Amino acid sequence: MISKDKLKENLRAVREKAPLVHNITNYVAMNFSANALLAIGASPVMAHAAEEVAEMSLAAGALVINIGTLDAEWVESIIIAGKTKHESGGVIVFDPVGVGATTYRTETAWKIIEECKPGIIRGNASEIMALINADIKSKGVDSSCCSEDAVESAIKLAERTGAIVVISGEIDYITDGHRVETISNGSRMMPRVTAMGCTASSMVGAFAAVSPENLFDASLHAMALMGVAGEIASCNSAGPGSLLTNFIDTLFNITEDQLSETVRQ
Amino acid sequence: MISKDKLKENLRAVREKAPLVHNITNYVAMNFSANALLAIGASPVMAHAAEEVAEMSLAAGALVINIGTLDAEWVESIIIAGKTKHESGGVIVFDPVGVGATTYRTETAWKIIEECKPGIIRGNASEIMALINADIKSKGVDSSCCSEDAVESAIKLAERTGAIVVISGEIDYITDGHRVETISNGSRMMPRVTAMGCTASSMVGAFAAVSPENLFDASLHAMALMGVAGEIASCNSAGPGSLLTNFIDTLFNITEDQLSETVRQ
Amino acid sequence: MISKDKLKENLRAVREKAPLVHNITNYVAMNFSANALLAIGASPVMAHAAEEVAEMSLAAGALVINIGTLDAEWVESIIIAGKTKHESGGVIVFDPVGVGATTYRTETAWKIIEECKPGIIRGNASEIMALINADIKSKGVDSSCCSEDAVESAIKLAERTGAIVVISGEIDYITDGHRVETISNGSRMMPRVTAMGCTASSMVGAFAAVSPENLFDASLHAMALMGVAGEIASCNSAGPGSLLTNFIDTLFNITEDQLSETVRQ
Repeated sequence: MISKDKLKENLRAVREKAPLVHNITNYVAMNFSANALLAIGASPVMAHAAEEVAEMSLAAGALVINIGTLDAEWVESIIIAGKTKHESGGVIVFDPVGVGATTYRTETAWKIIEECKPGIIRGNASEIMALINADIKSKGVDSSCCSEDAVESAIKLAERTGAIVVISGEIDYITDGHRVETISNGSRMMPRVTAMGCTASSMVGAFAAVSPENLFDASLHAMALMGVAGEIASCNSAGPGSLLTNFIDTLFNITEDQLSETVRQ
Repeated sequence: MISKDKLKENLRAVREKAPLVHNITNYVAMNFSANALLAIGASPVMAHAAEEVAEMSLAAGALVINIGTLDAEWVESIIIAGKTKHESGGVIVFDPVGVGATTYRTETAWKIIEECKPGIIRGNASEIMALINADIKSKGVDSSCCSEDAVESAIKLAERTGAIVVISGEIDYITDGHRVETISNGSRMMPRVTAMGCTASSMVGAFAAVSPENLFDASLHAMALMGVAGEIASCNSAGPGSLLTNFIDTLFNITEDQLSETVRQ
Repeated sequence: MISKDKLKENLRAVREKAPLVHNITNYVAMNFSANALLAIGASPVMAHAAEEVAEMSLAAGALVINIGTLDAEWVESIIIAGKTKHESGGVIVFDPVGVGATTYRTETAWKIIEECKPGIIRGNASEIMALINADIKSKGVDSSCCSEDAVESAIKLAERTGAIVVISGEIDYITDGHRVETISNGSRMMPRVTAMGCTASSMVGAFAAVSPENLFDASLHAMALMGVAGEIASCNSAGPGSLLTNFIDTLFNITEDQLSETVRQ
């Protein structure tokens, strides 16, 4: 069960500490993820040059790695940043976007997991399943499975990597290989806004930055905020365009009580 | 004349089949184009790494190539993806952004046309004219001509390349070199939203993916949807900021009847 | 003191002349900056390939250089474009995003200043201070100082480089090393919208393009428009998501009188 006190405390901590979150993320997500991080009071930075990623990732409270629009040079920078961050004992969130859609993505995702040892891995059902079962093929970057189907894979992935694994979907699942917690908030329109999953990963980064000693709770709380904010925002949204706008406004305005009272497991 | 039954049928097909549309497009357009594709029910993916573009484009129902922020490495990937997709008999839409603005763009556009043999080419009036007449200079990526002026060039371009050619503007023209059809919907604010043309090309990709046997109709129907959605959205929009939001909402909500009743040729 | 007649005249000139503004800017800002430029009637182009940046920058009324997501290849293109533009006597605006956050950014910023000789430099307080005092460390790309603290550094930077220096913040400061003018409009929510500063730099570029003989006034007027539009837009905005939308709408709709009557120094 989620501790509502800790949930409120962690939201407050993000707003008070304004953690720097270093994102090496895809071109589609950058603007939206930066706006979401600013809306909850965190400080986003996007930087990918091999010359600076080590220094930037060390200065940040968390490093978020996302391979949505990967290429060879970016992967090289990701490995530099990730290894440096891991060696310093820092927090890494990994979003294996589109794993299973191409061989290159699958191989790169495992290379990143093995070399950077992320503390948290967040993906949709297809992605989490494709990491465990090479026969699963993703259709681009959207999930073709429901999140429940991926729970077994998530547990295996957590066991195999030592990471907290998050599946986002109609129900979100968070597991460390032993415990499994869920978040049931959200809206059917959320998957129609591009980079919503990528933004969830950045949000997990912000919560992990203020709660590095408990990455399970950080993941759970960030997914709670995503689901609740998406649910509240969708009530006044005529479609995914206005949902995007209202979602950012909701992240900015949501109170600790509103969050803790609306969250459903 | 547009067949309203086929128009409705094609919109339904996009929503039912959720085609994967592989975009190798520019940094400015990526987020907006992805959101527009998701709003009509298609599944967008952006991928540009030489290591994966062939595999990704083969998995997709259509490949959309856009040179808005081209560079040498991206062009290399475009050629790999385009050749592979063409050899497989797949659908390619090409958007020659800014052709005529620099020599590099004009040369690259022709290289792509010759090596990838796109089935559809969509541009604004300046771009279509610059492809046929090297003396035409574009001012950046915005059109300095009205679309009517480019019809003759569009017909020549269609004859020379075998592609369906689309000019978007106050009136949109769609031609295969013989027939010319028009769409007269839209709003004066649409050119004030960046990447509206790029998004039209991605939309054409979605329709072509579900109607590969009739690229003329796919182009005509996609431009009808763009014009009608822009026109409906602009009614409630105080400016181009809200138009962007309302346009995405309209794509999500528009019914087949609304589309077929509002379209004007 | 700001001349309200000149302010109105310059806004009118941007709308009438629709200057082409060539941006070599970061991935986060591209879409928003392009939409802001279109909303005020300018014509944005984003282009970074070494093969075309010289030609594109010469065709444009102003070149805006922004290192928000720099890497070695982009810096190479920036230097080509900047040197070409400077040698032609053209206008260059430089936005040293994140200077002080990493050694690479600080070194690159000075390389650009020395080789491209920008006529205008715009940054937040941390960035302007970090350019003058190597001991100042920025936290990512957000300012950790208030703009007043950076005035002395701005004056020194203007003296040392010959550029107009703009500090944006709660109060904006514009200086040529002798005069210091201020703009006091804005909203506390503006720093919560990503790339608001980058967009200010692009806006300065548009005004400089129509007023190349007076870069001080161009900078002052662009910052006045940013502050006033942000202030008006925030009145109807529930959060930074709707602020973004309303800001673009306000840029599109604001009248010359509204601008000149609302500006505060």
